Amino acid sequence: MLVRLAELEIEPALLDAYKTHLSAEIEASVDIEPGVLALQAVALKDMPNHIRLLEVYADPQAYADHLLTPHFLRYKAATSGMVRALRLIEAEPVRLCAKSGFSELSEP
Amino acid sequence: MLVRLAELEIEPALLDAYKTHLSAEIEASVDIEPGVLALQAVALKDMPNHIRLLEVYADPQAYADHLLTPHFLRYKAATSGMVRALRLIEAEPVRLCAKSGFSELSEP
Repeated sequence: MLVRLAELEIEPALLDAYKTHLSAEIEASVDIEPGVLALQAVALKDMPNHIRLLEVYADPQAYADHLLTPHFLRYKAATSGMVRALRLIEAEPVRLCAKSGFSELSEP
Repeated sequence: MLVRLAELEIEPALLDAYKTHLSAEIEASVDIEPGVLALQAVALKDMPNHIRLLEVYADPQAYADHLLTPHFLRYKAATSGMVRALRLIEAEPVRLCAKSGFSELSEP
């Protein structure tokens, strides 16, 4: 398994547009790609333009494949001017549990 | 929905024991409690005694109920001497997606 955290700071005036692109990318990736196990994005309550992501891939190859998908490339191109800062943090799973039907249960 | 991030620093000599307690608490909570949608814990690769959690509850009541469950109280009692620092960060969901069968797919 490959687990990564991402911390992003988004241009505040472009936050709604950024979230729309990110949500579409997350849904497509988990839907279509067998090796994308979970992508979860939250915004900090006190600093809503600070986004945190928890990304879970089956293995390094699944992550490498993900970076070349049309939906990921579309997301990167559309949002490149919206992201002020991006920090990627390598991590190791301790324990990851979610209810079955989690994606639907947590739909906005 | 109620979403929270937690950042913990664990006493390095007690890290394995801490992870065992945390994993048991995560599994019991997602298994037993209808309002605990997901609990996910990772360790930073460069600082393995730094644990990050993403916690997703159905609503504030589900979170309040969670704090009074026997498995959570057992975890808190067992690990109180292991935790050097704990930071809780309130968050809002942007988009949370996981494959169906995620808990099993990501079993250690």
